[in-house]
Amino acid sequence: MLNTSRIKALTFDVFGTVVDYRSTIIKEGKQWNELKGLQVDWAKFADRWRSCYRPNMDRVLSGELPWMNLDALHRMALEMLLQEFEVEGLTEQEIDQLNRVWHRLEPWGDSVLGLQRLKQKFTISTLSNGNISLLTNMAKHSSLPWDVILTPSLVQTYKPDLAAYRMAIELLDLEPDQVMMVAAHQSDLQAAQKVGMKTAFVPRPLEFGWANIADQTPEFDFDVVARDFIDLAQQLGA
Amino acid sequence: MLNTSRIKALTFDVFGTVVDYRSTIIKEGKQWNELKGLQVDWAKFADRWRSCYRPNMDRVLSGELPWMNLDALHRMALEMLLQEFEVEGLTEQEIDQLNRVWHRLEPWGDSVLGLQRLKQKFTISTLSNGNISLLTNMAKHSSLPWDVILTPSLVQTYKPDLAAYRMAIELLDLEPDQVMMVAAHQSDLQAAQKVGMKTAFVPRPLEFGWANIADQTPEFDFDVVARDFIDLAQQLGA
Repeated sequence: MLNTSRIKALTFDVFGTVVDYRSTIIKEGKQWNELKGLQVDWAKFADRWRSCYRPNMDRVLSGELPWMNLDALHRMALEMLLQEFEVEGLTEQEIDQLNRVWHRLEPWGDSVLGLQRLKQKFTISTLSNGNISLLTNMAKHSSLPWDVILTPSLVQTYKPDLAAYRMAIELLDLEPDQVMMVAAHQSDLQAAQKVGMKTAFVPRPLEFGWANIADQTPEFDFDVVARDFIDLAQQLGA
Repeated sequence: MLNTSRIKALTFDVFGTVVDYRSTIIKEGKQWNELKGLQVDWAKFADRWRSCYRPNMDRVLSGELPWMNLDALHRMALEMLLQEFEVEGLTEQEIDQLNRVWHRLEPWGDSVLGLQRLKQKFTISTLSNGNISLLTNMAKHSSLPWDVILTPSLVQTYKPDLAAYRMAIELLDLEPDQVMMVAAHQSDLQAAQKVGMKTAFVPRPLEFGWANIADQTPEFDFDVVARDFIDLAQQLGA
Protein backbone atom coordinates (compact mmCIF):
# COMPACT_ATOMS: atom_id res chain seq x y z
CA MET A 1 0.00 0.00 0.00
CA LEU A 2 1.14 3.52 -0.83
CA ASN A 3 2.70 5.46 2.01
CA THR A 4 0.57 8.59 2.04
CA SER A 5 2.33 10.30 4.92
CA ARG A 6 4.19 12.78 2.70
CA ILE A 7 1.17 13.70 0.60
CA LYS A 8 -0.34 17.02 1.65
CA ALA A 9 -2.38 18.09 -1.36
CA LEU A 10 -4.30 16.56 -4.23
CA THR A 11 -4.69 18.48 -7.49
CA PHE A 12 -7.53 17.44 -9.76
CA ASP A 13 -8.11 17.52 -13.43
CA VAL A 14 -11.74 18.62 -13.72
CA PHE A 15 -13.32 18.13 -17.19
CA GLY A 16 -14.03 14.42 -17.47
CA THR A 17 -12.39 13.58 -14.15
CA VAL A 18 -14.67 15.44 -11.72
CA VAL A 19 -17.54 16.49 -13.97
CA ASP A 20 -19.43 14.83 -16.79
CA TYR A 21 -19.37 17.54 -19.44
CA ARG A 22 -20.98 15.37 -22.10
CA SER A 23 -24.17 14.58 -20.20
CA THR A 24 -24.51 18.15 -19.00
CA ILE A 25 -24.20 19.59 -22.50
CA ILE A 26 -26.73 17.06 -23.83
CA LYS A 27 -29.17 17.85 -21.01
CA GLU A 28 -28.94 21.62 -21.43
CA GLY A 29 -28.90 21.26 -25.20
CA LYS A 30 -32.23 19.47 -25.20
CA GLN A 31 -33.67 22.44 -23.34
CA TRP A 32 -32.30 24.74 -26.06
CA ASN A 33 -33.97 22.55 -28.68
CA GLU A 34 -37.32 23.01 -26.96
CA LEU A 35 -36.85 26.67 -26.19
CA LYS A 36 -35.71 27.70 -29.67
CA GLY A 37 -37.30 24.99 -31.81
CA LEU A 38 -33.92 23.52 -32.78
CA GLN A 39 -33.25 19.95 -33.86
CA VAL A 40 -29.62 19.64 -32.86
CA ASP A 41 -28.13 16.25 -31.97
CA TRP A 42 -26.49 17.45 -28.76
CA ALA A 43 -24.50 14.27 -28.22
CA LYS A 44 -22.75 14.93 -31.52
CA PHE A 45 -22.52 18.61 -30.67
CA ALA A 46 -20.89 17.87 -27.31
CA ASP A 47 -18.39 15.50 -28.92
CA ARG A 48 -17.49 18.01 -31.61
CA TRP A 49 -17.15 20.80 -29.03
CA ARG A 50 -14.87 18.71 -26.89
CA SER A 51 -12.88 17.67 -29.98
CA CYS A 52 -11.95 21.33 -30.54
CA TYR A 53 -10.52 21.57 -27.01
CA ARG A 54 -7.06 20.08 -27.36
CA PRO A 55 -6.27 21.43 -30.86
CA ASN A 56 -7.24 24.96 -29.85
CA MET A 57 -5.17 24.85 -26.65
CA ASP A 58 -2.27 23.53 -28.70
CA ARG A 59 -2.61 26.49 -31.05
CA VAL A 60 -2.23 28.77 -28.04
CA LEU A 61 0.73 26.79 -26.69
CA SER A 62 2.46 26.90 -30.08
CA GLY A 63 1.96 30.65 -30.34
CA GLU A 64 -0.28 30.35 -33.41
CA LEU A 65 -3.02 31.97 -31.32
CA PRO A 66 -2.36 34.70 -28.75
CA TRP A 67 -3.18 33.89 -25.11
CA MET A 68 -6.90 33.20 -24.80
CA ASN A 69 -8.56 31.67 -21.76
CA LEU A 70 -10.77 28.62 -22.00
CA ASP A 71 -14.02 30.62 -22.09
CA ALA A 72 -12.65 32.36 -25.18
CA LEU A 73 -11.55 29.09 -26.79
CA HIS A 74 -14.94 27.51 -26.07
CA ARG A 75 -16.61 30.52 -27.63
CA MET A 76 -14.42 30.38 -30.74
CA ALA A 77 -15.30 26.71 -31.21
CA LEU A 78 -18.97 27.32 -30.43
CA GLU A 79 -19.32 29.93 -33.19
CA MET A 80 -17.90 27.47 -35.69
CA LEU A 81 -20.18 24.68 -34.47
CA LEU A 82 -23.30 26.83 -34.58
CA GLN A 83 -22.64 27.21 -38.30
CA GLU A 84 -21.75 23.55 -38.74
CA PHE A 85 -24.99 22.44 -37.03
CA GLU A 86 -26.95 25.17 -38.82
CA VAL A 87 -28.18 26.80 -35.62
CA GLU A 88 -29.55 30.25 -36.33
CA GLY A 89 -31.41 32.95 -34.51
CA LEU A 90 -29.58 32.95 -31.17
CA THR A 91 -28.95 36.37 -29.66
CA GLU A 92 -25.51 37.37 -28.40
CA GLN A 93 -26.81 36.89 -24.87
CA GLU A 94 -28.07 33.39 -25.69
CA ILE A 95 -24.78 32.36 -27.30
CA ASP A 96 -22.96 33.58 -24.20
CA GLN A 97 -25.36 31.65 -22.00
CA LEU A 98 -24.82 28.50 -24.07
CA ASN A 99 -21.04 28.98 -23.95
CA ARG A 100 -21.22 29.11 -20.17
CA VAL A 101 -22.65 25.61 -19.96
CA TRP A 102 -19.02 24.77 -19.10
CA HIS A 103 -19.54 26.83 -15.90
CA ARG A 104 -22.47 24.58 -14.94
CA LEU A 105 -21.07 21.10 -15.53
CA GLU A 106 -22.40 18.44 -13.21
CA PRO A 107 -20.28 16.01 -11.23
CA TRP A 108 -20.02 12.26 -11.55
CA GLY A 109 -22.10 10.55 -8.87
CA ASP A 110 -19.14 9.91 -6.56
CA SER A 111 -17.32 13.22 -7.00
CA VAL A 112 -18.81 15.40 -4.26
CA LEU A 113 -18.82 12.75 -1.55
CA GLY A 114 -15.33 11.61 -2.50
CA LEU A 115 -13.98 15.18 -2.45
CA GLN A 116 -15.59 15.81 0.92
CA ARG A 117 -13.82 12.78 2.35
CA LEU A 118 -10.48 13.62 0.73
CA LYS A 119 -10.75 17.19 2.01
CA GLN A 120 -10.71 15.93 5.60
CA LYS A 121 -7.15 14.69 5.15
CA PHE A 122 -5.68 16.69 2.26
CA THR A 123 -5.78 20.10 0.67
CA ILE A 124 -7.86 19.61 -2.46
CA SER A 125 -7.34 21.88 -5.45
CA THR A 126 -8.32 22.08 -9.06
CA LEU A 127 -5.55 21.90 -11.61
CA SER A 128 -7.73 22.34 -14.65
CA ASN A 129 -7.30 24.28 -17.86
CA GLY A 130 -10.51 26.16 -17.08
CA ASN A 131 -10.25 29.82 -16.13
CA ILE A 132 -10.82 30.99 -12.55
CA SER A 133 -14.37 32.27 -13.09
CA LEU A 134 -15.39 29.09 -14.91
CA LEU A 135 -14.04 26.82 -12.15
CA THR A 136 -15.46 29.03 -9.39
CA ASN A 137 -18.92 29.15 -10.93
CA MET A 138 -18.85 25.39 -11.53
CA ALA A 139 -17.84 24.72 -7.92
CA LYS A 140 -20.76 26.80 -6.67
CA HIS A 141 -23.18 25.23 -9.14
CA SER A 142 -22.18 21.66 -8.35
CA SER A 143 -21.10 21.96 -4.70
CA LEU A 144 -17.48 21.00 -5.34
CA PRO A 145 -15.77 21.71 -2.02
CA TRP A 146 -12.35 22.89 -3.27
CA ASP A 147 -9.96 24.36 -0.76
CA VAL A 148 -8.39 26.44 -3.48
CA ILE A 149 -8.87 26.90 -7.21
CA LEU A 150 -5.68 26.74 -9.22
CA THR A 151 -5.38 26.85 -12.97
CA PRO A 152 -2.47 27.29 -15.37
CA SER A 153 -4.42 30.16 -16.87
CA LEU A 154 -3.01 32.15 -13.93
CA VAL A 155 0.30 31.98 -15.75
CA GLN A 156 -1.23 31.98 -19.22
CA THR A 157 -0.51 28.42 -20.16
CA TYR A 158 -2.31 25.08 -20.46
CA LYS A 159 -1.60 21.55 -19.32
CA PRO A 160 0.39 19.52 -20.25
CA ASP A 161 2.95 22.35 -20.27
CA LEU A 162 5.08 21.36 -17.26
CA ALA A 163 4.93 24.98 -16.07
CA ALA A 164 1.29 24.29 -15.21
CA TYR A 165 2.16 21.61 -12.67
CA ARG A 166 5.14 23.53 -11.29
CA MET A 167 2.94 26.57 -10.72
CA ALA A 168 0.55 24.55 -8.54
CA ILE A 169 3.36 23.02 -6.48
CA GLU A 170 4.91 26.44 -5.93
CA LEU A 171 1.65 28.18 -4.98
CA LEU A 172 0.88 25.39 -2.52
CA ASP A 173 4.41 25.84 -1.13
CA LEU A 174 5.05 22.09 -1.22
CA GLU A 175 7.62 19.71 -2.67
CA PRO A 176 6.59 17.90 -5.87
CA ASP A 177 6.23 14.53 -4.13
CA GLN A 178 3.90 16.07 -1.54
CA VAL A 179 1.32 16.71 -4.25
CA MET A 180 -0.72 14.05 -6.04
CA MET A 181 -2.29 14.72 -9.43
CA VAL A 182 -5.67 13.03 -9.91
CA ALA A 183 -6.94 12.58 -13.45
CA ALA A 184 -8.91 10.36 -15.79
CA HIS A 185 -6.39 11.04 -18.56
CA GLN A 186 -3.08 9.26 -18.57
CA SER A 187 -1.25 11.98 -20.53
CA ASP A 188 -2.07 14.47 -17.76
CA LEU A 189 -0.60 12.13 -15.17
CA GLN A 190 2.48 11.44 -17.25
CA ALA A 191 3.22 15.16 -17.35
CA ALA A 192 2.71 15.39 -13.58
CA GLN A 193 5.16 12.52 -13.09
CA LYS A 194 7.77 14.40 -15.11
CA VAL A 195 7.86 17.15 -12.48
CA GLY A 196 7.97 14.63 -9.63
CA MET A 197 4.35 14.62 -8.52
CA LYS A 198 2.54 11.55 -7.25
CA THR A 199 -0.28 10.32 -9.49
CA ALA A 200 -3.72 8.78 -9.14
CA PHE A 201 -5.49 7.46 -12.19
CA VAL A 202 -9.29 7.40 -11.93
CA PRO A 203 -10.65 6.08 -15.23
CA ARG A 204 -14.00 7.52 -16.27
CA PRO A 205 -15.15 5.00 -18.87
CA LEU A 206 -18.33 6.94 -19.63
CA GLU A 207 -16.58 10.22 -20.46
CA PHE A 208 -17.37 9.76 -24.15
CA GLY A 209 -20.73 8.06 -23.67
CA TRP A 210 -21.96 4.47 -23.58
CA ALA A 211 -21.29 3.97 -27.27
CA ASN A 212 -17.63 4.93 -26.93
CA ILE A 213 -16.24 3.14 -23.93
CA ALA A 214 -12.49 3.09 -24.40
CA ASP A 215 -9.96 0.62 -23.03
CA GLN A 216 -8.52 2.43 -20.04
CA THR A 217 -6.01 -0.12 -18.86
CA PRO A 218 -3.24 1.86 -17.16
CA GLU A 219 -0.33 2.11 -19.53
CA PHE A 220 2.05 3.63 -17.02
CA ASP A 221 3.06 3.07 -13.43
CA PHE A 222 0.76 5.29 -11.37
CA ASP A 223 0.91 5.45 -7.58
CA VAL A 224 -2.80 4.77 -7.30
CA VAL A 225 -5.43 3.45 -9.69
CA ALA A 226 -8.91 3.96 -8.28
CA ARG A 227 -12.39 3.03 -9.43
CA ASP A 228 -13.84 6.37 -8.37
CA PHE A 229 -13.28 9.11 -5.76
CA ILE A 230 -14.72 7.02 -2.93
CA ASP A 231 -12.26 4.27 -3.74
CA LEU A 232 -9.50 6.90 -3.99
CA ALA A 233 -10.38 8.19 -0.51
CA GLN A 234 -10.34 4.64 0.80
CA GLN A 235 -6.95 3.90 -0.73
CA LEU A 236 -5.47 7.15 0.61
CA GLY A 237 -6.82 6.53 4.10
CA ALA A 238 -9.12 9.55 4.00
CA MET B 1 -31.27 50.57 1.11
CA LEU B 2 -28.54 49.52 -1.29
CA ASN B 3 -29.69 47.85 -4.49
CA THR B 4 -27.72 44.61 -4.39
CA SER B 5 -29.04 43.20 -7.65
CA ARG B 6 -25.85 43.93 -9.60
CA ILE B 7 -23.49 42.59 -6.94
CA LYS B 8 -22.24 39.10 -7.80
CA ALA B 9 -19.12 38.72 -5.68
CA LEU B 10 -17.68 39.94 -2.40
CA THR B 11 -13.92 40.17 -1.95
CA PHE B 12 -12.63 40.24 1.60
CA ASP B 13 -9.65 41.68 3.29
CA VAL B 14 -8.58 38.94 5.71
CA PHE B 15 -6.07 40.05 8.38
CA GLY B 16 -8.06 42.01 10.91
CA THR B 17 -11.28 41.85 8.90
CA VAL B 18 -11.98 38.09 8.94
CA VAL B 19 -9.42 36.85 11.44
CA ASP B 20 -8.11 38.15 14.77
CA TYR B 21 -4.36 37.84 14.26
CA ARG B 22 -3.50 39.55 17.54
CA SER B 23 -5.36 37.13 19.80
CA THR B 24 -4.11 34.12 17.87
CA ILE B 25 -0.47 35.21 18.10
CA ILE B 26 -0.85 35.89 21.83
CA LYS B 27 -2.48 32.50 22.40
CA GLU B 28 0.12 30.54 20.45
CA GLY B 29 2.90 32.69 21.89
CA LYS B 30 1.97 31.76 25.44
CA GLN B 31 2.35 28.12 24.44
CA TRP B 32 5.83 28.92 23.12
CA ASN B 33 6.66 30.56 26.46
CA GLU B 34 5.73 27.38 28.29
CA LEU B 35 7.34 25.04 25.79
CA LYS B 36 10.66 26.86 25.55
CA GLY B 37 10.77 28.62 28.93
CA LEU B 38 10.50 32.07 27.32
CA GLN B 39 9.17 35.21 28.97
CA VAL B 40 8.02 37.10 25.89
CA ASP B 41 5.18 39.65 26.14
CA TRP B 42 3.29 38.30 23.13
CA ALA B 43 0.83 41.17 22.97
CA LYS B 44 3.77 43.50 22.39
CA PHE B 45 5.33 40.96 20.05
CA ALA B 46 2.14 40.71 17.99
CA ASP B 47 1.85 44.49 17.77
CA ARG B 48 5.48 44.84 16.70
CA TRP B 49 5.11 42.05 14.15
CA ARG B 50 2.06 43.65 12.65
CA SER B 51 3.77 47.05 12.67
CA CYS B 52 6.39 45.67 10.25
CA TYR B 53 3.67 44.60 7.79
CA ARG B 54 2.88 47.81 5.93
CA PRO B 55 6.44 49.22 5.83
CA ASN B 56 7.85 45.95 4.45
CA MET B 57 5.16 45.66 1.78
CA ASP B 58 5.83 49.28 0.85
CA ARG B 59 9.52 48.44 0.44
CA VAL B 60 8.49 45.75 -2.06
CA LEU B 61 6.09 48.08 -3.86
CA SER B 62 8.76 50.80 -4.12
CA GLY B 63 11.27 48.33 -5.53
CA GLU B 64 13.63 48.70 -2.54
CA LEU B 65 13.08 44.98 -1.91
CA PRO B 66 12.67 42.40 -4.70
CA TRP B 67 9.35 40.57 -4.87
CA MET B 68 8.83 38.55 -1.70
CA ASN B 69 5.58 36.96 -0.67
CA LEU B 70 4.02 37.58 2.71
CA ASP B 71 5.46 34.44 4.31
CA ALA B 72 8.90 35.77 3.42
CA LEU B 73 8.13 39.26 4.74
CA HIS B 74 6.76 37.80 7.97
CA ARG B 75 9.91 35.72 8.31
CA MET B 76 12.18 38.71 7.72
CA ALA B 77 10.37 40.66 10.43
CA LEU B 78 10.29 37.67 12.76
CA GLU B 79 14.06 37.25 12.67
CA MET B 80 14.49 40.88 13.64
CA LEU B 81 11.92 40.58 16.43
CA LEU B 82 13.47 37.41 17.86
CA GLN B 83 16.62 39.47 18.42
CA GLU B 84 14.70 42.48 19.71
CA PHE B 85 12.83 40.32 22.25
CA GLU B 86 15.99 38.37 23.05
CA VAL B 87 14.50 35.00 22.11
CA GLU B 88 17.22 32.41 21.68
CA GLY B 89 17.49 28.69 21.16
CA LEU B 90 14.76 28.13 18.58
CA THR B 91 15.62 25.66 15.84
CA GLU B 92 15.07 26.50 12.18
CA GLN B 93 12.03 24.24 12.22
CA GLU B 94 10.62 26.02 15.28
CA ILE B 95 11.13 29.45 13.75
CA ASP B 96 9.34 28.27 10.62
CA GLN B 97 6.52 26.87 12.75
CA LEU B 98 6.22 30.18 14.62
CA ASN B 99 6.25 32.11 11.35
CA ARG B 100 3.35 30.03 10.12
CA VAL B 101 1.12 31.18 12.96
CA TRP B 102 -0.25 33.46 10.22
CA HIS B 103 -1.52 30.29 8.49
CA ARG B 104 -3.49 29.40 11.61
CA LEU B 105 -5.22 32.66 12.46
CA GLU B 106 -8.60 32.32 14.06
CA PRO B 107 -11.75 34.09 12.92
CA TRP B 108 -13.79 36.72 14.73
CA GLY B 109 -16.85 35.12 16.31
CA ASP B 110 -19.23 36.15 13.51
CA SER B 111 -16.94 35.46 10.54
CA VAL B 112 -17.72 31.84 9.68
CA LEU B 113 -21.48 32.08 10.10
CA GLY B 114 -21.58 35.38 8.23
CA LEU B 115 -19.50 34.00 5.35
CA GLN B 116 -21.72 30.93 5.14
CA ARG B 117 -24.77 33.14 4.78
CA LEU B 118 -23.14 35.47 2.28
CA LYS B 119 -21.95 32.47 0.23
CA GLN B 120 -25.57 31.46 -0.38
CA LYS B 121 -26.13 34.62 -2.42
CA PHE B 122 -22.70 35.75 -3.61
CA THR B 123 -19.35 34.40 -4.71
CA ILE B 124 -17.08 35.01 -1.73
CA SER B 125 -13.36 35.45 -2.27
CA THR B 126 -10.32 36.55 -0.35
CA LEU B 127 -8.53 39.64 -1.58
CA SER B 128 -5.76 39.57 0.96
CA ASN B 129 -2.06 40.27 0.75
CA GLY B 130 -1.39 36.77 2.09
CA ASN B 131 0.08 34.22 -0.30
CA ILE B 132 -2.02 31.34 -1.67
CA SER B 133 -0.66 28.67 0.69
CA LEU B 134 -1.11 30.92 3.72
CA LEU B 135 -4.73 31.72 2.84
CA THR B 136 -5.51 28.12 1.90
CA ASN B 137 -4.07 26.71 5.11
CA MET B 138 -5.89 29.36 7.15
CA ALA B 139 -9.18 28.57 5.46
CA LYS B 140 -8.78 24.88 6.30
CA HIS B 141 -7.67 25.62 9.85
CA SER B 142 -10.51 28.02 10.58
CA SER B 143 -13.29 26.64 8.33
CA LEU B 144 -13.52 29.76 6.18
CA PRO B 145 -15.80 28.69 3.31
CA TRP B 146 -14.24 30.69 0.46
CA ASP B 147 -15.45 29.97 -3.05
CA VAL B 148 -12.09 31.03 -4.41
CA ILE B 149 -8.83 32.33 -2.98
CA LEU B 150 -7.48 35.39 -4.74
CA THR B 151 -4.46 37.40 -3.75
CA PRO B 152 -2.43 40.11 -5.45
CA SER B 153 0.61 37.93 -4.83
CA LEU B 154 -0.56 36.08 -7.97
CA VAL B 155 0.61 39.14 -9.89
CA GLN B 156 3.42 39.95 -7.48
CA THR B 157 1.97 43.04 -5.94
CA TYR B 158 0.26 44.14 -2.72
CA LYS B 159 -2.81 46.15 -1.90
CA PRO B 160 -3.43 49.07 -2.12
CA ASP B 161 -1.80 48.91 -5.56
CA LEU B 162 -4.86 49.30 -7.78
CA ALA B 163 -3.61 46.39 -9.91
CA ALA B 164 -4.54 44.15 -6.96
CA TYR B 165 -8.23 45.04 -7.18
CA ARG B 166 -8.28 44.98 -10.97
CA MET B 167 -6.79 41.48 -10.96
CA ALA B 168 -9.63 40.18 -8.79
CA ILE B 169 -12.31 41.78 -10.96
CA GLU B 170 -10.73 40.36 -14.10
CA LEU B 171 -10.29 36.83 -12.73
CA LEU B 172 -13.90 36.83 -11.55
CA ASP B 173 -14.88 38.00 -15.05
CA LEU B 174 -17.12 40.73 -13.64
CA GLU B 175 -17.54 44.47 -13.97
CA PRO B 176 -16.06 46.59 -11.14
CA ASP B 177 -19.48 47.54 -9.76
CA GLN B 178 -20.49 43.87 -9.58
CA VAL B 179 -17.84 43.28 -6.93
CA MET B 180 -17.94 44.57 -3.35
CA MET B 181 -14.78 44.91 -1.28
CA VAL B 182 -15.28 44.14 2.41
CA ALA B 183 -12.69 45.43 4.85
CA ALA B 184 -12.10 46.77 8.33
CA HIS B 185 -9.61 49.28 6.96
CA GLN B 186 -10.84 52.41 5.24
CA SER B 187 -7.71 52.83 3.09
CA ASP B 188 -8.35 49.42 1.53
CA LEU B 189 -11.90 50.44 0.66
CA GLN B 190 -10.80 53.78 -0.71
CA ALA B 191 -8.50 52.00 -3.15
CA ALA B 192 -11.31 49.63 -4.16
CA GLN B 193 -13.55 52.65 -4.81
CA LYS B 194 -10.93 54.11 -7.13
CA VAL B 195 -11.35 51.15 -9.51
CA GLY B 196 -15.14 51.32 -9.29
CA MET B 197 -15.86 48.56 -6.80
CA LYS B 198 -18.65 48.69 -4.25
CA THR B 199 -17.51 48.87 -0.64
CA ALA B 200 -18.56 47.52 2.73
CA PHE B 201 -16.87 48.81 5.88
CA VAL B 202 -16.94 46.41 8.80
CA PRO B 203 -15.07 48.06 11.70
CA ARG B 204 -13.23 45.65 13.97
CA PRO B 205 -12.67 47.81 17.04
CA LEU B 206 -10.72 45.08 18.84
CA GLU B 207 -8.15 44.54 16.08
CA PHE B 208 -5.46 46.22 18.21
CA GLY B 209 -6.72 44.97 21.57
CA TRP B 210 -8.92 46.37 24.32
CA ALA B 211 -6.32 48.97 25.30
CA ASN B 212 -6.19 50.43 21.80
CA ILE B 213 -9.72 50.85 20.58
CA ALA B 214 -9.56 53.41 17.80
CA ASP B 215 -12.25 55.75 16.58
CA GLN B 216 -13.59 54.01 13.49
CA THR B 217 -16.18 56.49 12.40
CA PRO B 218 -16.46 56.12 8.63
CA GLU B 219 -14.56 58.95 6.98
CA PHE B 220 -15.73 58.18 3.48
CA ASP B 221 -18.95 57.33 1.74
CA PHE B 222 -19.12 53.54 1.73
CA ASP B 223 -22.02 51.60 0.24
CA VAL B 224 -22.50 49.62 3.42
CA VAL B 225 -21.30 50.04 6.98
CA ALA B 226 -21.94 46.89 8.99
CA ARG B 227 -21.45 45.92 12.61
CA ASP B 228 -20.17 42.46 11.71
CA PHE B 229 -20.59 39.81 8.98
CA ILE B 230 -24.05 38.78 10.21
CA ASP B 231 -25.20 42.37 9.93
CA LEU B 232 -23.52 42.55 6.51
CA ALA B 233 -25.44 39.47 5.35
CA GLN B 234 -28.64 41.02 6.67
CA GLN B 235 -28.04 44.32 4.89
CA LEU B 236 -27.20 42.53 1.62
CA GLY B 237 -30.28 40.33 1.80
CA ALA B 238 -28.26 37.12 2.13
